[in-house]
Amino acid sequence: MKTGRFLQLLVYFCISIFSANGAHAQMDNRMIRLAKIEVDPAQLEAYNAALLEQMQTAVRREPGVLTYYAVADKKNPNLITILEIYADSSAYLKHISTDHFKKYKSTVAGMVKKLELIDVNLIGSAKQPGL
Amino acid sequence: MKTGRFLQLLVYFCISIFSANGAHAQMDNRMIRLAKIEVDPAQLEAYNAALLEQMQTAVRREPGVLTYYAVADKKNPNLITILEIYADSSAYLKHISTDHFKKYKSTVAGMVKKLELIDVNLIGSAKQPGL
Repeated sequence: MKTGRFLQLLVYFCISIFSANGAHAQMDNRMIRLAKIEVDPAQLEAYNAALLEQMQTAVRREPGVLTYYAVADKKNPNLITILEIYADSSAYLKHISTDHFKKYKSTVAGMVKKLELIDVNLIGSAKQPGL
Repeated sequence: MKTGRFLQLLVYFCISIFSANGAHAQMDNRMIRLAKIEVDPAQLEAYNAALLEQMQTAVRREPGVLTYYAVADKKNPNLITILEIYADSSAYLKHISTDHFKKYKSTVAGMVKKLELIDVNLIGSAKQPGL
């Protein structure tokens, strides 16, 4: 009986180790990026509309597109930063081959004055439950 | 009976209009910021630990601290960007008066080489359910 209990605990222990490693590996595979974009001020409204449509469509159609936050400098609303999180690099490669992404790129081609892509690592995130 | 049905629909319509406006006003009150931080590379590990503790404590203790994402440039991990979302400016003012925030500020005082705070507006966000 004691040996049975010990084996049971050992199994739980092994499962927890493998689960933790799995979760960790999954976290490490995420591809995270900051896109810094300078938009032609005269076309800002059209750019923002195209960006919103791209973000919403990608998240709805692609399970590997995890998170987008797009923000605009209050003082210079044509300076835009997007935080992009993909499940992994293959999800990203799949994303940029989709019709909705290609449509976005061609729509905004004449609106974007500068584009800087910065690969980043997540130090951490925290948010209220349900957000 | 037809007038009753019309009035019922009118009430629903008015409620939906007011609800939509309420939601919109609530969204507009959020205070959103990008903090760009350059950390002394020799103290990066200690800085990241202090940042993580601050973020997690704030979200746990303060309902008005909604969201944090902290990321580090892959090429220069001492260049850190934090996306911060507060329920409104009073939630932010309350936040910077808390003991955990003051502890963070005093801990990292000698670690931060540059700090730039950029107030931003949310253009939009999208994420997979449950994230």
